[in-house]
Amino acid sequence: MQTKTSLVTGGAGFIGSHVAKHCLAMGQKVVVLDDLSGGFEDHLPEGVTFVQGSVTDAALVTKLFEEYKFNYVYHLAAYAAEGLSHFIRRFNYNVNLIGSINLINESVKHKVECFVFTSSIAVYGAGQLPMTEAMVPQPEDPYGVSKYAVEMDLKAAHEMFGLNYVVFRPHNVYGENQNIGDKYRNVIGIFMNQIMQGQQLTVFGDGTQTRAFSYIDDVAIPIAKSVTIPEAYNEVFNIGADKPYSVNELAGVVGECFNTTPDIKYLSARNEVLHAYSDHTKAHKVFGEGTNITLKEGIARMAAWAKVVGARKSKEFGNIEITEKLPDGWAVIVEKPVTETELV
Amino acid sequence: MQTKTSLVTGGAGFIGSHVAKHCLAMGQKVVVLDDLSGGFEDHLPEGVTFVQGSVTDAALVTKLFEEYKFNYVYHLAAYAAEGLSHFIRRFNYNVNLIGSINLINESVKHKVECFVFTSSIAVYGAGQLPMTEAMVPQPEDPYGVSKYAVEMDLKAAHEMFGLNYVVFRPHNVYGENQNIGDKYRNVIGIFMNQIMQGQQLTVFGDGTQTRAFSYIDDVAIPIAKSVTIPEAYNEVFNIGADKPYSVNELAGVVGECFNTTPDIKYLSARNEVLHAYSDHTKAHKVFGEGTNITLKEGIARMAAWAKVVGARKSKEFGNIEITEKLPDGWAVIVEKPVTETELV
Ligand SMILES: NC(=O)c1ccc[n+]([C@@H]2O[C@H](COP(=O)([O-])OP(=O)(O)OC[C@H]3O[C@@H](n4cnc5c(N)ncnc54)[C@H](O)[C@@H]3O)[C@@H](O)[C@H]2O)c1
Ligand SMILES: NC(=O)c1ccc[n+]([C@@H]2O[C@H](COP(=O)([O-])OP(=O)(O)OC[C@H]3O[C@@H](n4cnc5c(N)ncnc54)[C@H](O)[C@@H]3O)[C@@H](O)[C@H]2O)c1
Repeated sequence: MQTKTSLVTGGAGFIGSHVAKHCLAMGQKVVVLDDLSGGFEDHLPEGVTFVQGSVTDAALVTKLFEEYKFNYVYHLAAYAAEGLSHFIRRFNYNVNLIGSINLINESVKHKVECFVFTSSIAVYGAGQLPMTEAMVPQPEDPYGVSKYAVEMDLKAAHEMFGLNYVVFRPHNVYGENQNIGDKYRNVIGIFMNQIMQGQQLTVFGDGTQTRAFSYIDDVAIPIAKSVTIPEAYNEVFNIGADKPYSVNELAGVVGECFNTTPDIKYLSARNEVLHAYSDHTKAHKVFGEGTNITLKEGIARMAAWAKVVGARKSKEFGNIEITEKLPDGWAVIVEKPVTETELV
Repeated sequence: MQTKTSLVTGGAGFIGSHVAKHCLAMGQKVVVLDDLSGGFEDHLPEGVTFVQGSVTDAALVTKLFEEYKFNYVYHLAAYAAEGLSHFIRRFNYNVNLIGSINLINESVKHKVECFVFTSSIAVYGAGQLPMTEAMVPQPEDPYGVSKYAVEMDLKAAHEMFGLNYVVFRPHNVYGENQNIGDKYRNVIGIFMNQIMQGQQLTVFGDGTQTRAFSYIDDVAIPIAKSVTIPEAYNEVFNIGADKPYSVNELAGVVGECFNTTPDIKYLSARNEVLHAYSDHTKAHKVFGEGTNITLKEGIARMAAWAKVVGARKSKEFGNIEITEKLPDGWAVIVEKPVTETELV
């Protein structure tokens, strides 16, 4: 069989680094494009070709497609801070939409066999629960709008040019390689980082909001495999865990893994969906059941990794476009400084 | 009463120049921002302040908001070639989405009283007829996706920051000041230009596709007035004529106005919606009935204007991103050259 060559954008990031690893295991040649704005070179699995650069750099994207003649594109690069996206609208659309369009253009021109895109359950908005793929999305924040726009554009590119795609809508993924230094999202990473720095755990609202937290393997494995499953082509899949937990329950589980009782500091509530969980029947039919890793086991694995990596400094987002109504703690540096050498 | 200052983007274009005229008549101070990519300085109504530049130039947009402290923003600037948008994806999203986001950002920061946006019935896709505002849009081409993304972003900006907006979804508008030299869209202008140059009329498909062609006054007057009508705030309106005509019927009416029997050249069908007409009940309730100008009368008025202006050279779009499947006649210059001096 001919060796397939894949582009994994965002492959130095959390989900992308796992997807790249599974692609290598499937025998693919893998090129990672990542600008390291949110990823880390030491997350790159051994054996990938790494190109540091941005998906927004159209000339670079063109050059890579000409050089490597990709069979598959896994597009995971994004700035994925949903809540912050209200305050960085232009940046959000530029990275998440225009960056995606550069890749879609080249994928059409070079007749890529399949374009895999990680969208998000943010596309649904605060609609009925559970969210199913049969619903027409109605996103409510710029991040969700940019993801949904890419989904619609992929559909148009398929109808017009025959480009095959698979869209995944993951939610609340956690696990090893997650950027626990990002204070704008990923509550599990934030909690771990806070515990390891001896800080209080910060929660927006009263902590009764629920999410179905999903262990990385249940998401990254189907994403990597999807290109080999024809029934998945030109379909959209919710993907992730089924069981919702409240943020307060989650704090308890994370505390346990660090042998501590969490001390929670409640901040004023953000403009966010209170309960979010989605139906995964369709994904299970096409990709099989997941790994059934429980929250406790997944968190324990991630905690073991985080203890080795250590606390990471929370990067400030440098270029806030609108400062009005920015939530508590997002506008100024609140963490105590951690030096670069502590970051591993 | 305090004089209101308005920004009209795309005010050197077709609909924008009429909107600017009505705004002046309402006593507003009007600043037009237009890059003249599709508009003409001689369309600018007397009395506006004209700034030549692009809505994609964030620094310029910021400067204008600081200088003029706009009360209202009428955002009409766009590259509106729906069919072509498949082949110029990045350009489409950059002008139509990122350009709009620059304006939304500044409108939030400067507490603009109302942001009026011309979307399009392209957002609906090939759904049920007639299209009503209660339907959830499902656009099918990059132009429609970019318009719908802006609609959703405006809604998010309203929820988060209280920015008021009015969204209009016009369709198939025609009349004086229309760019009849644009071969990528506006079938009426294309027909007039072709007749005046002694060419055959080109029709994609068999000409049985129908559209409800709308005379400019029925669209530009409600758009201009909307900022003064509180019930219109944060609502979406279909706007335009009710009665659909086939493209073949239209060719007959245009021919009549030029005292000629049209000679039609049928080209292969494009990927477009076959029948499109929308319900205007909601607009009539809020803005009153329209002017009731018939197709024949509207076309006659436009023809009288076009005869004075003369045939315009069709501009080629210089930067096609994907050439595969580009419809007949869009890839190469097919018109006989017309010198610049013939253009006015
Ligand atoms: N983690 C989740 O729970 C979750 C949920 C839904 C969707 N997603 C989506 O999954 C994808 C991966 O998310 P993640 O959680 O691994 O985030 P991540 O931040 O760890 O990974 C994103 C990677 O993209 C890179 N990147 C950002 N902008 C880039 C640019 N302009 N050019 C090139 N690289 C760029 C970053 O450096 C980072 O390595 C994203 O598309 C995200 O929207 C994630
Ligand atoms: N004409 C129709 O039937 C119709 C239907 C639905 C929606 N619309 C919308 O109405 C608006 C006006 O359309 P129109 O028919 O008058 O088109 P038009 O091309 O005559 O006007 C658009 C104007 O915007 C200007 N422009 C384009 N890109 C710009 C940029 N980057 N910066 C500044 N100015 C720029 C052009 O020079 C032009 O003057 C558009 O938003 C269009 O999408 C029109």
